[in-house]
Amino acid sequence: MAGYGPVMKISDVLRNKGTEVATIRPDESVTRLIEVLADRGVGALVVSPDGTAVVGIVSERDVVRHLHRTGAAVLNGPVSAIMTSDVTTCSADDEVESLARTMTQRRIRHVPVLADGRLEAIVSIGDVVKHRIDALQSERDQLVEYIQQ
Amino acid sequence: MAGYGPVMKISDVLRNKGTEVATIRPDESVTRLIEVLADRGVGALVVSPDGTAVVGIVSERDVVRHLHRTGAAVLNGPVSAIMTSDVTTCSADDEVESLARTMTQRRIRHVPVLADGRLEAIVSIGDVVKHRIDALQSERDQLVEYIQQ
Repeated sequence: MAGYGPVMKISDVLRNKGTEVATIRPDESVTRLIEVLADRGVGALVVSPDGTAVVGIVSERDVVRHLHRTGAAVLNGPVSAIMTSDVTTCSADDEVESLARTMTQRRIRHVPVLADGRLEAIVSIGDVVKHRIDALQSERDQLVEYIQQ
Repeated sequence: MAGYGPVMKISDVLRNKGTEVATIRPDESVTRLIEVLADRGVGALVVSPDGTAVVGIVSERDVVRHLHRTGAAVLNGPVSAIMTSDVTTCSADDEVESLARTMTQRRIRHVPVLADGRLEAIVSIGDVVKHRIDALQSERDQLVEYIQQ
Protein backbone atom coordinates (compact mmCIF):
# COMPACT_ATOMS: atom_id res chain seq x y z
CA MET A 1 0.00 0.00 0.00
CA ALA A 2 2.91 2.36 -0.68
CA GLY A 3 1.62 5.78 -1.64
CA TYR A 4 -1.66 5.32 0.24
CA GLY A 5 -2.75 8.36 2.21
CA PRO A 6 -2.10 12.06 1.67
CA VAL A 7 1.42 13.13 0.65
CA MET A 8 3.02 15.08 3.50
CA LYS A 9 5.47 17.83 2.66
CA ILE A 10 8.22 19.50 4.67
CA SER A 11 6.08 22.66 4.63
CA ASP A 12 3.48 20.73 6.71
CA VAL A 13 6.15 19.95 9.32
CA LEU A 14 7.30 23.59 9.37
CA ARG A 15 3.73 24.80 9.93
CA ASN A 16 3.85 23.14 13.36
CA LYS A 17 7.40 23.93 14.39
CA GLY A 18 8.12 27.34 12.88
CA THR A 19 11.16 28.48 10.98
CA GLU A 20 13.63 29.83 13.51
CA VAL A 21 17.18 28.59 12.82
CA ALA A 22 20.23 29.09 15.03
CA THR A 23 23.41 29.73 13.04
CA ILE A 24 27.09 30.30 13.81
CA ARG A 25 29.81 31.79 11.58
CA PRO A 26 32.59 29.46 10.34
CA ASP A 27 35.28 31.73 11.85
CA GLU A 28 33.80 31.67 15.37
CA SER A 29 35.59 29.43 17.89
CA VAL A 30 34.52 25.97 19.00
CA THR A 31 34.37 27.38 22.56
CA ARG A 32 31.78 29.89 21.34
CA LEU A 33 29.96 27.04 19.55
CA ILE A 34 29.52 24.99 22.74
CA GLU A 35 28.27 28.13 24.50
CA VAL A 36 25.57 28.68 21.85
CA LEU A 37 24.60 24.98 21.87
CA ALA A 38 24.09 25.19 25.66
CA ASP A 39 22.22 28.53 25.55
CA ARG A 40 19.85 27.31 22.84
CA GLY A 41 19.53 23.78 24.26
CA VAL A 42 20.15 22.24 20.84
CA GLY A 43 22.49 19.57 19.47
CA ALA A 44 23.56 21.21 16.20
CA LEU A 45 23.87 24.57 14.45
CA VAL A 46 23.87 25.57 10.81
CA VAL A 47 27.17 27.24 9.84
CA SER A 48 26.64 30.41 7.84
CA PRO A 49 28.76 33.53 7.33
CA ASP A 50 25.70 35.78 6.94
CA GLY A 51 22.70 33.84 8.29
CA THR A 52 21.42 32.90 4.82
CA ALA A 53 24.17 31.03 2.86
CA VAL A 54 24.77 27.53 4.26
CA VAL A 55 28.46 26.45 4.32
CA GLY A 56 28.20 23.63 6.87
CA ILE A 57 26.48 22.02 9.80
CA VAL A 58 28.12 21.34 13.18
CA SER A 59 26.93 19.10 16.01
CA GLU A 60 27.84 17.95 19.52
CA ARG A 61 29.14 14.80 17.83
CA ASP A 62 31.59 16.82 15.68
CA VAL A 63 32.97 18.47 18.84
CA VAL A 64 33.45 15.15 20.66
CA ARG A 65 34.96 13.30 17.67
CA HIS A 66 37.47 16.10 16.98
CA LEU A 67 38.38 16.34 20.67
CA HIS A 68 39.20 12.64 20.42
CA ARG A 69 41.34 13.03 17.27
CA THR A 70 43.06 16.34 18.00
CA GLY A 71 42.74 17.03 21.73
CA ALA A 72 41.67 20.14 23.61
CA ALA A 73 43.36 22.50 21.10
CA VAL A 74 40.23 22.04 18.98
CA LEU A 75 38.34 24.31 21.42
CA ASN A 76 40.35 27.37 20.43
CA GLY A 77 40.15 26.60 16.71
CA PRO A 78 37.41 27.78 14.35
CA VAL A 79 34.08 26.04 13.76
CA SER A 80 35.16 25.54 10.11
CA ALA A 81 37.82 23.04 11.30
CA ILE A 82 35.25 20.60 12.73
CA MET A 83 32.04 21.24 10.75
CA THR A 84 30.58 18.97 8.06
CA SER A 85 30.80 20.88 4.76
CA ASP A 86 28.93 18.33 2.69
CA VAL A 87 25.45 19.35 3.89
CA THR A 88 22.28 17.52 2.88
CA THR A 89 19.57 20.15 2.36
CA CYS A 90 15.92 20.04 1.32
CA SER A 91 13.17 22.37 0.14
CA ALA A 92 9.79 23.05 1.78
CA ASP A 93 8.18 21.30 -1.18
CA ASP A 94 9.97 17.96 -0.60
CA GLU A 95 8.04 14.96 0.70
CA VAL A 96 8.46 14.04 4.39
CA GLU A 97 8.54 10.32 3.54
CA SER A 98 11.44 10.74 1.14
CA LEU A 99 13.44 12.99 3.50
CA ALA A 100 12.88 10.51 6.34
CA ARG A 101 14.42 7.78 4.17
CA THR A 102 17.42 9.96 3.27
CA MET A 103 18.01 10.90 6.94
CA THR A 104 17.89 7.25 8.01
CA GLN A 105 20.20 6.07 5.19
CA ARG A 106 22.80 8.82 5.72
CA ARG A 107 22.34 8.69 9.50
CA ILE A 108 21.84 12.45 9.77
CA ARG A 109 19.70 14.18 12.37
CA HIS A 110 19.34 17.70 11.00
CA VAL A 111 18.57 19.02 7.50
CA PRO A 112 18.51 22.75 6.61
CA VAL A 113 15.56 23.85 4.47
CA LEU A 114 16.58 26.18 1.60
CA ALA A 115 14.58 28.46 -0.69
CA ASP A 116 16.50 29.90 -3.66
CA GLY A 117 19.76 28.93 -1.94
CA ARG A 118 18.85 30.83 1.22
CA LEU A 119 18.42 29.25 4.66
CA GLU A 120 14.74 29.23 5.65
CA ALA A 121 14.37 26.64 8.41
CA ILE A 122 15.76 23.38 9.79
CA VAL A 123 14.08 20.01 10.30
CA SER A 124 15.29 17.36 12.73
CA ILE A 125 14.78 13.60 12.61
CA GLY A 126 12.48 14.09 15.63
CA ASP A 127 10.24 16.52 13.70
CA VAL A 128 10.02 14.17 10.73
CA VAL A 129 9.32 11.09 12.81
CA LYS A 130 6.68 12.81 14.96
CA HIS A 131 4.90 13.87 11.79
CA ARG A 132 4.96 10.36 10.29
CA ILE A 133 3.62 8.78 13.51
CA ASP A 134 0.83 11.37 13.82
CA ALA A 135 -0.14 10.85 10.16
CA LEU A 136 -0.13 7.05 10.44
CA GLN A 137 -2.17 7.14 13.65
CA SER A 138 -4.85 9.42 12.24
CA GLU A 139 -5.00 7.35 9.05
CA ARG A 140 -5.46 4.18 11.10
CA ASP A 141 -8.18 5.81 13.23
CA GLN A 142 -10.06 6.88 10.07
CA LEU A 143 -9.89 3.37 8.66
CA VAL A 144 -11.18 1.86 11.92
CA GLU A 145 -14.03 4.38 12.00
CA TYR A 146 -14.90 3.53 8.39
CA ILE A 147 -15.04 -0.19 9.22
CA GLN A 148 -17.18 0.38 12.31
CA GLN A 149 -19.80 2.48 10.47
CA MET B 1 -8.90 4.23 19.38
CA ALA B 2 -6.22 4.13 22.09
CA GLY B 3 -5.29 0.56 22.87
CA TYR B 4 -6.25 -0.70 19.43
CA GLY B 5 -3.77 -3.13 17.91
CA PRO B 6 -1.38 -5.60 19.52
CA VAL B 7 0.60 -4.46 22.58
CA MET B 8 4.30 -4.20 21.71
CA LYS B 9 6.85 -4.87 24.40
CA ILE B 10 10.49 -3.85 24.78
CA SER B 11 11.39 -7.54 24.35
CA ASP B 12 9.98 -7.28 20.77
CA VAL B 13 12.35 -4.39 20.06
CA LEU B 14 15.31 -6.29 21.52
CA ARG B 15 14.54 -9.33 19.36
CA ASN B 16 15.51 -7.21 16.33
CA LYS B 17 18.43 -5.28 17.73
CA GLY B 18 20.14 -7.68 20.13
CA THR B 19 21.35 -7.03 23.63
CA GLU B 20 24.95 -5.84 23.39
CA VAL B 21 25.59 -2.83 25.67
CA ALA B 22 28.73 -0.71 25.79
CA THR B 23 29.66 0.38 29.32
CA ILE B 24 32.38 2.49 30.96
CA ARG B 25 33.47 2.60 34.61
CA PRO B 26 32.70 5.79 36.61
CA ASP B 27 36.40 6.20 37.51
CA GLU B 28 37.61 6.14 33.89
CA SER B 29 38.54 9.53 32.37
CA VAL B 30 36.40 11.63 30.06
CA THR B 31 39.26 11.37 27.52
CA ARG B 32 38.83 7.58 27.60
CA LEU B 33 35.04 8.07 27.29
CA ILE B 34 35.31 10.05 24.04
CA GLU B 35 37.67 7.39 22.70
CA VAL B 36 35.13 4.62 23.38
CA LEU B 37 32.27 6.73 21.92
CA ALA B 38 34.31 7.15 18.70
CA ASP B 39 35.40 3.49 18.51
CA ARG B 40 31.86 2.22 19.01
CA GLY B 41 30.26 4.93 16.86
CA VAL B 42 27.64 5.64 19.54
CA GLY B 43 26.35 8.76 21.31
CA ALA B 44 26.10 7.45 24.89
CA LEU B 45 27.42 4.77 27.24
CA VAL B 46 25.98 3.17 30.34
CA VAL B 47 28.18 3.82 33.38
CA SER B 48 28.81 0.69 35.40
CA PRO B 49 31.61 -0.36 37.77
CA ASP B 50 31.23 -4.04 36.86
CA GLY B 51 29.22 -4.22 33.62
CA THR B 52 25.98 -5.18 35.39
CA ALA B 53 25.10 -2.54 38.06
CA VAL B 54 23.97 0.75 36.47
CA VAL B 55 25.22 3.90 38.26
CA GLY B 56 24.73 6.40 35.45
CA ILE B 57 24.48 7.19 31.77
CA VAL B 58 26.81 9.55 29.89
CA SER B 59 26.39 11.10 26.44
CA GLU B 60 28.12 13.37 23.93
CA ARG B 61 25.81 16.11 25.25
CA ASP B 62 27.14 15.67 28.81
CA VAL B 63 30.71 16.10 27.51
CA VAL B 64 29.86 19.26 25.55
CA ARG B 65 27.77 20.86 28.32
CA HIS B 66 30.45 20.25 30.96
CA LEU B 67 33.19 21.56 28.66
CA HIS B 68 31.12 24.72 28.44
CA ARG B 69 30.67 25.02 32.22
CA THR B 70 34.09 23.90 33.42
CA GLY B 71 36.49 24.08 30.47
CA ALA B 72 39.00 21.56 29.11
CA ALA B 73 39.94 20.32 32.63
CA VAL B 74 36.82 18.15 32.39
CA LEU B 75 38.70 15.88 29.94
CA ASN B 76 41.13 14.68 32.61
CA GLY B 77 38.42 14.23 35.23
CA PRO B 78 36.40 11.04 35.80
CA VAL B 79 33.24 10.07 33.94
CA SER B 80 31.40 10.23 37.31
CA ALA B 81 31.84 14.05 37.29
CA ILE B 82 29.77 14.52 34.14
CA MET B 83 27.40 11.53 34.01
CA THR B 84 23.67 11.61 34.74
CA SER B 85 23.12 9.55 37.91
CA ASP B 86 19.34 9.74 37.86
CA VAL B 87 18.88 7.07 35.18
CA THR B 88 15.50 6.14 33.72
CA THR B 89 15.49 2.37 33.21
CA CYS B 90 12.93 -0.12 31.92
CA SER B 91 12.32 -3.87 31.85
CA ALA B 92 11.94 -6.12 28.78
CA ASP B 93 8.31 -6.59 29.80
CA ASP B 94 7.44 -2.85 29.55
CA GLU B 95 5.24 -1.58 26.72
CA VAL B 96 6.97 0.25 23.84
CA GLU B 97 4.16 2.83 23.66
CA SER B 98 4.58 3.79 27.30
CA LEU B 99 8.39 3.98 27.11
CA ALA B 100 8.13 6.12 23.96
CA ARG B 101 5.96 8.58 25.90
CA THR B 102 8.39 8.68 28.83
CA MET B 103 11.38 9.25 26.51
CA THR B 104 9.60 12.10 24.72
CA GLN B 105 8.44 13.75 27.97
CA ARG B 106 11.84 13.53 29.69
CA ARG B 107 13.68 14.23 26.42
CA ILE B 108 15.96 11.22 26.83
CA ARG B 109 17.42 9.20 23.98
CA HIS B 110 18.74 6.06 25.71
CA VAL B 111 17.17 3.78 28.34
CA PRO B 112 19.02 0.80 29.89
CA VAL B 113 16.98 -2.39 30.16
CA LEU B 114 17.37 -4.12 33.54
CA ALA B 115 16.48 -7.63 34.76
CA ASP B 116 16.69 -8.16 38.53
CA GLY B 117 18.74 -4.96 38.81
CA ARG B 118 21.28 -6.18 36.26
CA LEU B 119 22.00 -4.47 32.93
CA GLU B 120 20.66 -6.57 30.06
CA ALA B 121 20.39 -4.24 27.04
CA ILE B 122 19.82 -0.64 25.97
CA VAL B 123 17.07 0.87 23.81
CA SER B 124 17.38 4.15 21.95
CA ILE B 125 14.64 6.56 20.87
CA GLY B 126 15.49 5.45 17.30
CA ASP B 127 14.77 1.79 18.11
CA VAL B 128 11.47 2.65 19.77
CA VAL B 129 10.32 4.96 17.01
CA LYS B 130 11.25 2.53 14.21
CA HIS B 131 9.20 -0.14 15.97
CA ARG B 132 6.15 2.12 16.35
CA ILE B 133 6.25 3.20 12.69
CA ASP B 134 6.60 -0.41 11.47
CA ALA B 135 3.71 -1.52 13.72
CA LEU B 136 1.43 1.35 12.61
CA GLN B 137 2.21 0.74 8.93
CA SER B 138 1.45 -2.96 9.10
CA GLU B 139 -1.75 -2.26 11.06
CA ARG B 140 -2.86 0.23 8.42
CA ASP B 141 -2.07 -2.19 5.61
CA GLN B 142 -4.14 -4.91 7.30
CA LEU B 143 -7.10 -2.52 7.71
CA VAL B 144 -6.91 -1.48 4.04
CA GLU B 145 -6.78 -5.11 2.98
CA TYR B 146 -9.80 -5.89 5.17
CA ILE B 147 -11.78 -3.04 3.57
CA GLN B 148 -10.84 -4.10 0.05
CA GLN B 149 -11.90 -7.74 0.51
